[in-house]
Amino acid sequence: MSDLEIRPAAPEDIPAIVAMLADDPLGAQRESPDDLAPYLAAFDRLAEDPHQHLVVAVRDDQVVGTLQLTVIPGLSRRGATRSIIEGVRIHADERGSGLGTRLIEWAVEESGRLGCQLVQLTSDATRIDAHRFYERLGFEASHLGFKKAL
Amino acid sequence: MSDLEIRPAAPEDIPAIVAMLADDPLGAQRESPDDLAPYLAAFDRLAEDPHQHLVVAVRDDQVVGTLQLTVIPGLSRRGATRSIIEGVRIHADERGSGLGTRLIEWAVEESGRLGCQLVQLTSDATRIDAHRFYERLGFEASHLGFKKAL
Repeated sequence: MSDLEIRPAAPEDIPAIVAMLADDPLGAQRESPDDLAPYLAAFDRLAEDPHQHLVVAVRDDQVVGTLQLTVIPGLSRRGATRSIIEGVRIHADERGSGLGTRLIEWAVEESGRLGCQLVQLTSDATRIDAHRFYERLGFEASHLGFKKAL
Repeated sequence: MSDLEIRPAAPEDIPAIVAMLADDPLGAQRESPDDLAPYLAAFDRLAEDPHQHLVVAVRDDQVVGTLQLTVIPGLSRRGATRSIIEGVRIHADERGSGLGTRLIEWAVEESGRLGCQLVQLTSDATRIDAHRFYERLGFEASHLGFKKAL
């Protein structure tokens, strides 16, 4: 396989990112790849916030992966800054290629460069394979993740 | 009991907040209430970020509770903005008083005012009482929360 580049997402990447968000058992129910307007508006909100880092992984000019890294200052743990990884998606053609590992390792390293002492993420309780994947990468499933829709 | 006020935290509140962070089975191992310098530096980082809302609950001029609300834009769920609740602490004298419910209800309402479609938080797997508390308030324990220290 040819080289992989991980770079900040651009507006032109939105269709490919949304296609990946929708190509997923959970995402299929809650995304709208035929209507990109809400995603473009959200991209503007992300671009305005210097603590948001939405990136894509690109191989052969194709977007094959994405994740969002958010840097969150805080008081607890002696004023530790933490990062949160959200929206990890790997293109179906790339699953099993090691790209997920590359992306998460990038996010962990970038978190250190950005001054974080802790990296955290939540994974849907039904995504058993993802849980094993994160544990292999040194994450500990120490918490329960609660959500409430508004 | 007299009235409760929930307001943005000020630098003068830091000693009381850190005392609450440390007065906890988990916090006792990782906080340093005798050295406030890292907390004051973290407070400056919070104050500079318009997406951070660190609040205190005050009764009779005493800080009796705190939490941090972070607003995070994103692409998934049709460009949904979410909030994350971190650092929830209730003064020992106020536990069982309903203050925790008041604080979380405030955070949920404020998240709606700030344009969020989803509120999320993680709770240490050992905090069984907290899990029941969040479920009573309408949160669903749908995820596992992974952390990795850097």
